[in-house]
Amino acid sequence: MRTGADLATIRERKPLVHQITNYVVMNETANATLAIGALPVMAHAVEEVEEMASAAGALVLNIGTLSRHWIEAMLLAGKAANAARVPVVLDPVGVGATRLRTDTARRILDEVDVAVLRGNAAEVAALAGLESEIRGVEAVGAEGEGSQIARAAARGLGVVASVTGPVDHVSDGNRTLAVTNGDPLLATITGSGCMSSTLTGCFVAVRPESLAEAAAFGLAAFGVAGEDAARGAEGPGTFHARLYDALYALTPEALDGRANIGDA
Amino acid sequence: MRTGADLATIRERKPLVHQITNYVVMNETANATLAIGALPVMAHAVEEVEEMASAAGALVLNIGTLSRHWIEAMLLAGKAANAARVPVVLDPVGVGATRLRTDTARRILDEVDVAVLRGNAAEVAALAGLESEIRGVEAVGAEGEGSQIARAAARGLGVVASVTGPVDHVSDGNRTLAVTNGDPLLATITGSGCMSSTLTGCFVAVRPESLAEAAAFGLAAFGVAGEDAARGAEGPGTFHARLYDALYALTPEALDGRANIGDA
Amino acid sequence: MRTGADLATIRERKPLVHQITNYVVMNETANATLAIGALPVMAHAVEEVEEMASAAGALVLNIGTLSRHWIEAMLLAGKAANAARVPVVLDPVGVGATRLRTDTARRILDEVDVAVLRGNAAEVAALAGLESEIRGVEAVGAEGEGSQIARAAARGLGVVASVTGPVDHVSDGNRTLAVTNGDPLLATITGSGCMSSTLTGCFVAVRPESLAEAAAFGLAAFGVAGEDAARGAEGPGTFHARLYDALYALTPEALDGRANIGDA
Repeated sequence: MRTGADLATIRERKPLVHQITNYVVMNETANATLAIGALPVMAHAVEEVEEMASAAGALVLNIGTLSRHWIEAMLLAGKAANAARVPVVLDPVGVGATRLRTDTARRILDEVDVAVLRGNAAEVAALAGLESEIRGVEAVGAEGEGSQIARAAARGLGVVASVTGPVDHVSDGNRTLAVTNGDPLLATITGSGCMSSTLTGCFVAVRPESLAEAAAFGLAAFGVAGEDAARGAEGPGTFHARLYDALYALTPEALDGRANIGDA
Repeated sequence: MRTGADLATIRERKPLVHQITNYVVMNETANATLAIGALPVMAHAVEEVEEMASAAGALVLNIGTLSRHWIEAMLLAGKAANAARVPVVLDPVGVGATRLRTDTARRILDEVDVAVLRGNAAEVAALAGLESEIRGVEAVGAEGEGSQIARAAARGLGVVASVTGPVDHVSDGNRTLAVTNGDPLLATITGSGCMSSTLTGCFVAVRPESLAEAAAFGLAAFGVAGEDAARGAEGPGTFHARLYDALYALTPEALDGRANIGDA
Repeated sequence: MRTGADLATIRERKPLVHQITNYVVMNETANATLAIGALPVMAHAVEEVEEMASAAGALVLNIGTLSRHWIEAMLLAGKAANAARVPVVLDPVGVGATRLRTDTARRILDEVDVAVLRGNAAEVAALAGLESEIRGVEAVGAEGEGSQIARAAARGLGVVASVTGPVDHVSDGNRTLAVTNGDPLLATITGSGCMSSTLTGCFVAVRPESLAEAAAFGLAAFGVAGEDAARGAEGPGTFHARLYDALYALTPEALDGRANIGDA
């Protein structure tokens, strides 16, 4: 695969990644975007999101902290991105936990042509109508389940579904890829899922014609950086700081050699 | 005391701690929640806060950056938490600095049954009607004063009052506990007070029947982690990163051995 | 110059720096304010911004993430600061990228007496009507251009213009200072520009009578800290943590000896 080549392209083209995301992780996803070599922009006003999304290389919508005007802005930005052929990544944080989150994620999927849906197994399963197969909001099933959830969501929702967990699965409904990079410390910091959605945005910005591959590349890059950050980390705090170091230091050659992507 | 046992319970039960807090510290309080072993959720939309608060193990309200809809959300969430017997922690950041903050904190205390009020001496004294005994918003009085402020606030406001400073004091109006863990570097980073309120929420979630003890346990856990983080820190930035490492690495045994809690 | 003396004054007086800034960097600018020795406060509600701004030593307005109520709050706070003779720093993040940002920055400059305008070359040039001399939003021209942009903006807009880049230029329209401290790692983290605006606020709070010098001092302090943080950093993440360590450890003597400020 051309994982490393796409990383080199990101650093050369520096795509603008427009993010309408939650308050908790904005700094983190902006720094992850910069560290991988792209340019972040956060903008949520209904007065400017269409202009910004149209000019971006990718749009990332993340429903982690919602309110009425932000939902309106996400829909406007998503439609503008669609009109400008800018790929849209949706991160349905906490879907299933409240009616507002479930309704909003479904409405975005209805009204916007979402390129990649990136969530954990419980979130993606909830949107694919597979709730009964998930045990608890935080519980992630076995490896095989992640693969099945990704495939079912891709087919049912007409998206590339990217389901992260101990092993990540990305499916376009036909082919399903498994990504086995990463480190358990990623689960100890808030926003690691949000960062993986942002990196998905960075990679789909330079390979919009192969969304499933691009989504897998983004997860592999994040996972390899997580592996590097874990070496020498003394816990979640030093790991978090080292994660940006590792994303920044990641070379195309290292990514090609270490990305662990295969058919599921 | 059962400080270490409660830490073990947090890690086993992983209580959901719903936080409606300020924009400045959301990432920090979410990461502190994860590091101690609980699950954070940030949600502020009036459409979802009642549902979220009812399902939580504790609700933390923090008025650090207010606006009209957020005040409305805090009141709705607080009442829903009361109805569901979910303990509510209030952090009255900057109360006394503007009329909006003072009015909002008083309104929350009026309309919501607050379990624990966690603030610095000036903030808690302002709410207890003891302003004249405080010199400046940032000034913290002598040790004896913190104890008196906590006791007076507990009696006057019908809450457990948790007053943090060089020495922390927690009072239910009858018994007053002093907690002497911590490190001066905690005062050099923004959000350390907010994080102590969040950890209070984590501990009251597993000991709602003994709020004063639970509040003291949360402060002791934060203080011990601060002591650990200070070793090897080169200043506020590396201390901040190491603080999450220390919270994550804190064992029940270490907490039991080092928590410095006594009658004031 | 009295760069070190002003740093000592900040630590002695601890001026309150009221910041109405973007969601992405609030934690970072608050921590930078604390590390240099001043007191940060974030407040954006229209109900309290006038009260807060009037009581502050400086007001920093940053348009990084706008919405309607925030614009209203910035105008109210700016006018209240003007009435109370509190210096106002404006950071026009992303001006030129959308009409909303351009219109808002122009409106603030029209309705508020801005003391210091701090931005990158493209942003300041856009506001000074020099767009044609800028190549792309992120592109910064040669050293001579930064100086010319600062001088033109100062004269055209009636402000002290502070243009940051590989070399920073600060002009009051007559005299133009060049500051050559800093490290390339500053450009790898989000919010470094916003932090330089915040430090500008800290320094103008203690030298409002010499705004250009104060603005240059703030940039020199930030640049020297950046140089210190880079030593031993392994990338953007560890650099970021070490930046607060370096601001906190910066002594008046070190700043005097290493600040590299001269006539442009």
